Amino acid sequence: MYTNILRHPGPTPIPKKVQLAMSEDIISHRSEEFVNLYRKTTNRVKPIFGTEQDILLLPSGGTAALEAAAVNTVSPGENVVVITVGAFGDYFVSICEKYGFNVHKLEKEWGQACTEEELGEFLKPLKDVKAVFATYNETSTGILNPIDKLAQAVRTYSDALFIVDGVSCIGGAPAEMNKWGIDILVTGSQKAMMLPPGLSFVSVSDRAWKVIEENNTPAYYLNLLSYREWAAKGMTPNTPAVTLIYGLAAVCDMIEEEGGFAQTVARHELMKNMVRESMKALNIGLLASDEYASPTITAIRTPEGLDLAQFLKHLKQQYHLDFAGGLGHLQGEIFRFGHMGYCFPSDVLQAVSLMEAGLQDFSYSFELGAGVKAAQEVFLAAHRK
Amino acid sequence: MYTNILRHPGPTPIPKKVQLAMSEDIISHRSEEFVNLYRKTTNRVKPIFGTEQDILLLPSGGTAALEAAAVNTVSPGENVVVITVGAFGDYFVSICEKYGFNVHKLEKEWGQACTEEELGEFLKPLKDVKAVFATYNETSTGILNPIDKLAQAVRTYSDALFIVDGVSCIGGAPAEMNKWGIDILVTGSQKAMMLPPGLSFVSVSDRAWKVIEENNTPAYYLNLLSYREWAAKGMTPNTPAVTLIYGLAAVCDMIEEEGGFAQTVARHELMKNMVRESMKALNIGLLASDEYASPTITAIRTPEGLDLAQFLKHLKQQYHLDFAGGLGHLQGEIFRFGHMGYCFPSDVLQAVSLMEAGLQDFSYSFELGAGVKAAQEVFLAAHRK
Repeated sequence: MYTNILRHPGPTPIPKKVQLAMSEDIISHRSEEFVNLYRKTTNRVKPIFGTEQDILLLPSGGTAALEAAAVNTVSPGENVVVITVGAFGDYFVSICEKYGFNVHKLEKEWGQACTEEELGEFLKPLKDVKAVFATYNETSTGILNPIDKLAQAVRTYSDALFIVDGVSCIGGAPAEMNKWGIDILVTGSQKAMMLPPGLSFVSVSDRAWKVIEENNTPAYYLNLLSYREWAAKGMTPNTPAVTLIYGLAAVCDMIEEEGGFAQTVARHELMKNMVRESMKALNIGLLASDEYASPTITAIRTPEGLDLAQFLKHLKQQYHLDFAGGLGHLQGEIFRFGHMGYCFPSDVLQAVSLMEAGLQDFSYSFELGAGVKAAQEVFLAAHRK
Repeated sequence: MYTNILRHPGPTPIPKKVQLAMSEDIISHRSEEFVNLYRKTTNRVKPIFGTEQDILLLPSGGTAALEAAAVNTVSPGENVVVITVGAFGDYFVSICEKYGFNVHKLEKEWGQACTEEELGEFLKPLKDVKAVFATYNETSTGILNPIDKLAQAVRTYSDALFIVDGVSCIGGAPAEMNKWGIDILVTGSQKAMMLPPGLSFVSVSDRAWKVIEENNTPAYYLNLLSYREWAAKGMTPNTPAVTLIYGLAAVCDMIEEEGGFAQTVARHELMKNMVRESMKALNIGLLASDEYASPTITAIRTPEGLDLAQFLKHLKQQYHLDFAGGLGHLQGEIFRFGHMGYCFPSDVLQAVSLMEAGLQDFSYSFELGAGVKAAQEVFLAAHRK
């Protein structure tokens, strides 16, 4: 009867408009209708990536697209740097190790970002680095790496390609891949893009295409040259996820209705601030500092004295509010409040209200309404601007 | 205004029930709800494969699943036999060549099937064949290879694994993978399975798992061991295509409503016979012989004297009937009538009727209604049984 209020880092809720769009009749992927849909829709995604380059659509999860970025650019034995600040950075390390790359791991404590200076120092002594991999938004810790500055450091201290995992923030965070100097930017459908899982997005700089052309890629489905070749014809090498592309067109409509992508980014920034201020007002810790806090997901420390597993279970069973737990060694230490994609400031107010109800049930010491009030203040201030 | 009558070999039309099921709210892929959905649904798919083994669900197109079957079992330089009777057999050859396998190609003329005897003769002189790859249903020619007999030949003449591409027929053709001796059977969602593209299915025999365990697979997303490990927990290694799994549950309901999978197979057999008899009555050639004709797609020769491209264009523009053209050197020679998945005998009657209207417009010499009548006779005979 009650709707589960899914405030996870993904998959995230799907707008009704998108669901309806996805119910459109199937068309052939080799038809003129498809070519029109594909061209028009991928063009509309370009501003979200901050590029004029093609947006390639892979019928796969984000992991496959990350693997494609790696395997199309680097060969076994070559040097790569992987910046890892959490579970998904480690994921990238595993992909690179699987392919026998010589991985130099720039590892930060979970909850920290990687700074431009740190990356610069790390790169300086290294030679012949083929690619630097970074996570833009680390889903496990709610850290948004300063990706524009990291790109700068890559360009200053190496000739490497800069390859960025944008899975859990693209569509909700600013991205200027060309201006910043990102060579390959990857995202998935099921996070800030408001779509079900099953579609991934890859955009590749001219510089990276040159490397890819010379690289002997040991992959078939994930061969980016083949995607580029077909994209020139407005198609994909294999059967594409047609329904998700219908949905993507609806997502682009919704972003347009919101007033353009800058507004969408501003909404995410606002939601982030609302969540953070409410937690501060409740005297509950935040894993990330304000400077590097993610606009799409907030990692919140266990409220003092609470059994986190019990608390999360109670919120779900009693109030149908569904937060995600911590990953790896942060399990039991933090929980994660997803506020991306089809999520609005009103949803943040709702979630904080319900969370306060749960805190009251668990006899946490606070003034009922204090968190909501802090969020309201941020909300009102934004509207008054 | 008019609905496009999509009679392609895939992607194929989606039932409304499936569309509605896919509109269900998104759940976390790490939740108990998901585990229940995954376990229950994959168990219901087992009879369609003719197995009690796990059905692994990959969030990808069928090509990726075929690549997974290859890359998880064979290492570069090892011998494989690829049976190719058309474009999709050639596709499998490309995958194997991409990975540096030593490919022995058993090639048949397009429109022919591969027989048990031919495979036996081909295998006899070969040594150390790691795997034999075959297409069950060749989409480009409408040929259904005698896969049960081919499996027998593989077992008789080699120790190789028998790996089968069932993409364009599983769900509409009989499959007894364990009884017949298929080691890996693969299919995709967008053909006879009545789902949108984006989900693929893989089932692996115990014998094949042993090979996979010892094989050093150079793939991350397509690593089947990782799918097996997570499947044991009722989950998938990466974010699964949750909405397509909702849809899959609805597909299983529909098959149950039809009276079980044997009835679904019988419906496809009936549609095949209706199409074939109608074309014979119209004096239009068929590429495949009756013995090896596909239950899901019929390749029809260009009616005498017609410009095929013009004819197909006319059918689509005038009557909204959408057939697929021929591939490769068969372009202009044949067209392909898809009758799989969400397609019923009544749809065949409709399509043949409209096709006859088009034939009349193109002054093809025939008795109007003759094709439909032949299809009706097959239809009635089946109902009188």
